[in-house]
Amino acid sequence: MQAGVPSSAPHRVVIVGGGFGGLYAAKTIDGDSRFDVTLVDRHNYHLFQPLLYQVATGALAPSEIAQPLRGILRRHRNLTVLLGEAVGLDPANRRVLLSDGGPIEYDSLIVATGARHSYFGNEGWATVASGLKSIDDATLIRRRILIAFEAAEREHVAELRREWMTFVVVGGGPTGVELAGSLGEIANDTLRRDFRSINPPDARIILVEAMERVLPPYPEGRSTSARRQLERLGVVVRTSTRVVGIDEHGVDVETADGRERIPARTVLWAAGVQASSFARKVADATGAETDRAGRVKVGPDLTLPGHPEIFVIGDAAIQPGGPHGGPVPGVAQGAIQPGRYAARVLKARLEGRRLGPFRYRNLGDVAVIGRLSGVTNIPWLGPFGRTGGFLAWALWLGIHIVYLIGFSNRILVLVRWAWSFITFGRGSRLITGQPLVPDIEEPEPPA
Amino acid sequence: MQAGVPSSAPHRVVIVGGGFGGLYAAKTIDGDSRFDVTLVDRHNYHLFQPLLYQVATGALAPSEIAQPLRGILRRHRNLTVLLGEAVGLDPANRRVLLSDGGPIEYDSLIVATGARHSYFGNEGWATVASGLKSIDDATLIRRRILIAFEAAEREHVAELRREWMTFVVVGGGPTGVELAGSLGEIANDTLRRDFRSINPPDARIILVEAMERVLPPYPEGRSTSARRQLERLGVVVRTSTRVVGIDEHGVDVETADGRERIPARTVLWAAGVQASSFARKVADATGAETDRAGRVKVGPDLTLPGHPEIFVIGDAAIQPGGPHGGPVPGVAQGAIQPGRYAARVLKARLEGRRLGPFRYRNLGDVAVIGRLSGVTNIPWLGPFGRTGGFLAWALWLGIHIVYLIGFSNRILVLVRWAWSFITFGRGSRLITGQPLVPDIEEPEPPA
Repeated sequence: MQAGVPSSAPHRVVIVGGGFGGLYAAKTIDGDSRFDVTLVDRHNYHLFQPLLYQVATGALAPSEIAQPLRGILRRHRNLTVLLGEAVGLDPANRRVLLSDGGPIEYDSLIVATGARHSYFGNEGWATVASGLKSIDDATLIRRRILIAFEAAEREHVAELRREWMTFVVVGGGPTGVELAGSLGEIANDTLRRDFRSINPPDARIILVEAMERVLPPYPEGRSTSARRQLERLGVVVRTSTRVVGIDEHGVDVETADGRERIPARTVLWAAGVQASSFARKVADATGAETDRAGRVKVGPDLTLPGHPEIFVIGDAAIQPGGPHGGPVPGVAQGAIQPGRYAARVLKARLEGRRLGPFRYRNLGDVAVIGRLSGVTNIPWLGPFGRTGGFLAWALWLGIHIVYLIGFSNRILVLVRWAWSFITFGRGSRLITGQPLVPDIEEPEPPA
Repeated sequence: MQAGVPSSAPHRVVIVGGGFGGLYAAKTIDGDSRFDVTLVDRHNYHLFQPLLYQVATGALAPSEIAQPLRGILRRHRNLTVLLGEAVGLDPANRRVLLSDGGPIEYDSLIVATGARHSYFGNEGWATVASGLKSIDDATLIRRRILIAFEAAEREHVAELRREWMTFVVVGGGPTGVELAGSLGEIANDTLRRDFRSINPPDARIILVEAMERVLPPYPEGRSTSARRQLERLGVVVRTSTRVVGIDEHGVDVETADGRERIPARTVLWAAGVQASSFARKVADATGAETDRAGRVKVGPDLTLPGHPEIFVIGDAAIQPGGPHGGPVPGVAQGAIQPGRYAARVLKARLEGRRLGPFRYRNLGDVAVIGRLSGVTNIPWLGPFGRTGGFLAWALWLGIHIVYLIGFSNRILVLVRWAWSFITFGRGSRLITGQPLVPDIEEPEPPA
């Protein structure tokens, strides 16, 4: 049976998660008075995750890439935003449980809770290797990077100073490549003249990737181009290198030649993700299958088998309909398009229509690597879609500005980028939060 | 004897504190190669404190009013910036002790460590009534204000909802007036259409001042004007009202009519300040006198009696040379001018010259109260200096933009203000930090 409703009462839709998937689902329902929508999120804002690494590296302020959900959705009078954490599902009674107990009833449910880091069973690494999924993650990473340079400036033992001046980025996907590239820029340009005892361009930035090339989903030529651009920024790219241990003073890696120790005080984690814990609870409650990363397997219409009223979309799901018959990739478009699709399915059902299965349209990928350069992989542009250098950078800039939510954010980010471009600076280099002074081993007065 | 040095080695100046006093002292020494300057601060940035209330109320982002000290002072090659906390003074050996033990030697010392909140002996109030002195204070206040509206939206018991919707600002000085005015704007304009169960303009904003009028240092007509403007924004102004108790659920006040209880979940503290703890340590180590707020008494040249090599300036000191023979007021100019003066005294000494005593030049005061209005008190402009409404607002805007450090910040803040002005919005309304969900008493599902 269809997840129908009596025509008199509005159809109650609960959307869990205000990321790309949830937000675009809400926007696509767009004030349609046949629906009564509740959007639940733990945060009061929508976060533009593709630019999170720019907050982590001091180029943008948190509020420039995050916009209050209530503000974005203010005009949708049939939509309620609820600040809350979904912690359980009662599919028999069609209720979502919140952390403070109040259940919300739904007729249809869209689960769009995204992903968090996965340390592949090494949960002890989490305290040392910072992942990048939230605003708080980003300000922590910013703090760690800036404090490392401050500590190095005050450290007089050469060996310990080198530890502070070494940054290891684990994972050579888009996030890892963009983080490593930004670190290269920080060391070579932004901080170049800021210190007296250390020379920031001496910093060692090491990108570690277990596969044999960076940006594995891109064609091989793009990977080679990305690697060359990273190396030009002084980044040491170590492919076919597996991380086997991380502690406060360094990283242990394994290559074909054996084990090796990289002493480093700052390790950033861009390697693995797993579905949010709510996705697992949805799977447990409905008997749906998950993969090793906890992602829920959904049918061709992105709903759970036996539960046509429950959609799971974006990074929380393994979505069929991706390129070459595979799953949809874990990028922004891999949540935006399913969000729109789910909303259209709901509308079609009310009208007694049926939509075809979800089909992902590959708009292409683009990653930026430092100043004026990057790589793209945009299939529908033909040979023009496989660019590098300046053209990739310009495309990246245009796409990100267009998708950024909020007109004032677009202007602010453009001003920031223009200014950074002219001055080689990064305007948001604040160390916030306690404690404010780095805890270094052997404090000594400056020379 | 003068605090002299052999002409061969540079004169070592240590500046403690990178606020207005310390920064303008460093900028006035300006690369003069006869000096070797070390600036110590607990933070890696200079904070433009007059706009801190705009961060607390979501109008500006932290990085728009804070600029990394290393960036500002990069070109001064004889200057070293040190991230550290000064915790003690050894005046006999002319050394400043840092929290991690490493002492720094000086020939001359400028103490510009500012002030922190004072709860007048009621230190228990600190956990409930948030003060506003640092970036972390401001993001905490922003978080508390936004969470109060979120909690009210979910609260179904009318009485508890009213507690969440009541905001008490303690202290009717410029900070209290500006905070209360901004809260009025948030409730009436910014959040007006954002909620479904509550009506934000119903929020009660109460400004409590023990004296008989707000803005006590201004002429009486200006106080009346400020009060009228606040009331137009819906702020309840309660003068001649003393706070005698604060807890998690409200404020106890005392008036001529007796005691009264104001139930409220959000209390902001803008009432009292005391000198930083380092100022007290300087006084203890040198035998200098302090007042009840811990401010150090300095001579006409802003140095300590018997210690011509130690300057104490800004909010850490009671500085003679203010208006009408009184002390210098605790405003930005009351630190900027002394900072410049101290640097000029040091230069004069090296040249065998003597400067006259410090004289404060009253450039005037200006406070903004919500949209398009404010009050000024600018003596040297004559009758034009006592304006209200739009002219005050325009003056305030011009002055703050000119004094804001960093050209890109000026542009960003102008864009933000222009945008807020057009849309009645506030672009930086993020709730950051843990826990993300408000802890409310009786959680219930939305209607």
